[in-house]
Amino acid sequence: MALPELIYALEFVGILAFAISGMLEAQNRDMDPVGVFAIACITAFGGGTLRDVILDHQPVYWISHQEFPIIILLLTLGFSYIPKLRAIPARFMVLPDAIGLGIFTVLGTQLALKMGVPVFSACLLGVITGTFGGLARDIICNEVPFIFRKEHLYASCALAGALTFWMLTFWFTTDAVPILGGMSVTVLMRLLSVYFDLRLQRH
Amino acid sequence: MALPELIYALEFVGILAFAISGMLEAQNRDMDPVGVFAIACITAFGGGTLRDVILDHQPVYWISHQEFPIIILLLTLGFSYIPKLRAIPARFMVLPDAIGLGIFTVLGTQLALKMGVPVFSACLLGVITGTFGGLARDIICNEVPFIFRKEHLYASCALAGALTFWMLTFWFTTDAVPILGGMSVTVLMRLLSVYFDLRLQRH
Amino acid sequence: MALPELIYALEFVGILAFAISGMLEAQNRDMDPVGVFAIACITAFGGGTLRDVILDHQPVYWISHQEFPIIILLLTLGFSYIPKLRAIPARFMVLPDAIGLGIFTVLGTQLALKMGVPVFSACLLGVITGTFGGLARDIICNEVPFIFRKEHLYASCALAGALTFWMLTFWFTTDAVPILGGMSVTVLMRLLSVYFDLRLQRH
Repeated sequence: MALPELIYALEFVGILAFAISGMLEAQNRDMDPVGVFAIACITAFGGGTLRDVILDHQPVYWISHQEFPIIILLLTLGFSYIPKLRAIPARFMVLPDAIGLGIFTVLGTQLALKMGVPVFSACLLGVITGTFGGLARDIICNEVPFIFRKEHLYASCALAGALTFWMLTFWFTTDAVPILGGMSVTVLMRLLSVYFDLRLQRH
Repeated sequence: MALPELIYALEFVGILAFAISGMLEAQNRDMDPVGVFAIACITAFGGGTLRDVILDHQPVYWISHQEFPIIILLLTLGFSYIPKLRAIPARFMVLPDAIGLGIFTVLGTQLALKMGVPVFSACLLGVITGTFGGLARDIICNEVPFIFRKEHLYASCALAGALTFWMLTFWFTTDAVPILGGMSVTVLMRLLSVYFDLRLQRH
Repeated sequence: MALPELIYALEFVGILAFAISGMLEAQNRDMDPVGVFAIACITAFGGGTLRDVILDHQPVYWISHQEFPIIILLLTLGFSYIPKLRAIPARFMVLPDAIGLGIFTVLGTQLALKMGVPVFSACLLGVITGTFGGLARDIICNEVPFIFRKEHLYASCALAGALTFWMLTFWFTTDAVPILGGMSVTVLMRLLSVYFDLRLQRH
């Protein structure tokens, strides 16, 4: 599989994962289908849109790929009118959220480095790409954002994945392995932090 | 009236309408005149600014048209120091808010289609243009945004107007009639939803 | 000192000042080091990023100057692991916050005027540059933003500094004196408003 196809496929998976995490959150808020669709779109597209706007990378990716919002619309319809899907407990959003975080962080870092951004700024942009969707979701739902609650590691997992990606690019001539490597580090670290209750400071 | 003049006139009306809805909201919050001016500007310019930034449409419209912020400043002064204006009950903000929603949604969709954005993304951008100002107003005032409360139809009215505009462009060679048509659909649907208490899901 | 060096030096001071004010705020929220770093970055870079995105001024300044986020990272580490620094009471954030406000407002106005933005829009952009970082900080910490609480003058100080800068440019051929003049007006007015309890409307 060539690099552009790999990136497209991962973007697809990341968008689905974040959209689902947004829907599970919106369900807790008792929103109507349009609200669910809006929260799903904001969670899925928020980080990538901010990345593209800051880097002036035109066109913003969901603008030229209308299949992404259309799929989220179909998912929302299924989610809103099939009661079984809505019965999924909200704690299951940890897995899709971790996958989305890993994919978008690494893809954000990769795009920034490719566009000539210095390393530390590129990693920061990767973290922004990975976390902004969930941050906007939590701000709109009017709670102190997930990422800033002292519960588990979140942005630290993103930063670790971004740095892993950058270091791996020295060993490999193509970006495919570093992308998959960085992504795995973020997802694993996030899941371990939730299940083994890790944090940076004790209470 | 030529198309650019029609668009300018509608933009003017939409900005006034949203600015007034922002002032009525800020009044409820007991803000000082600078706060009222800021909330009015954010409500009036928020959606169009986000649209211009996402589409990389330069210069952002209120940057080159300083008459818009100046008029809002004059309105704010009147609103802050003439007690009679401040006595308008907050429920009257439904009408200016509906007019602003209709105008900005259709103008956002029209600009996006003209710049070659695919249809579904263009309608979504229209909805963002119409709703983001009110969304930012509600987030800053620290409440669950209007648009996501399960009370009445809101974003659905915007989406209906955007789709109406797009379909009407197949019948008319100029954009003037589709703009007015799409706008009317949004405004009417929003007012009907408030006065007849329509919503997508029953409680 | 030439103008670009003066601007760089002031930007440096403004970023430090806002980063410190963000850390003092984050400390009150009992956040972990990553949260403190994120809030510090958002406060320090928020206004300038929004300014650069709206003006399409590429590259966004912290993207090309990775020394800025690196310094904030070092500050955060010091702040998080040296207990004495964390003992600074939160009311001391008034001074760094006022300095950041003054510097960013005037630099935002100066850049906008240099890029040909009309005067009133340029002053507004200056106010946005000065206030957006603190606004985002307060929204994320889930409180009604500082700037909109009816406690003291805030955005008014920024506006006064922006107008002072603009008027001084008629008397001086270089921007250095107007920058320092506008900045001083904002900082002094803000400090006087806090210590003498000035506001636009009585309770």
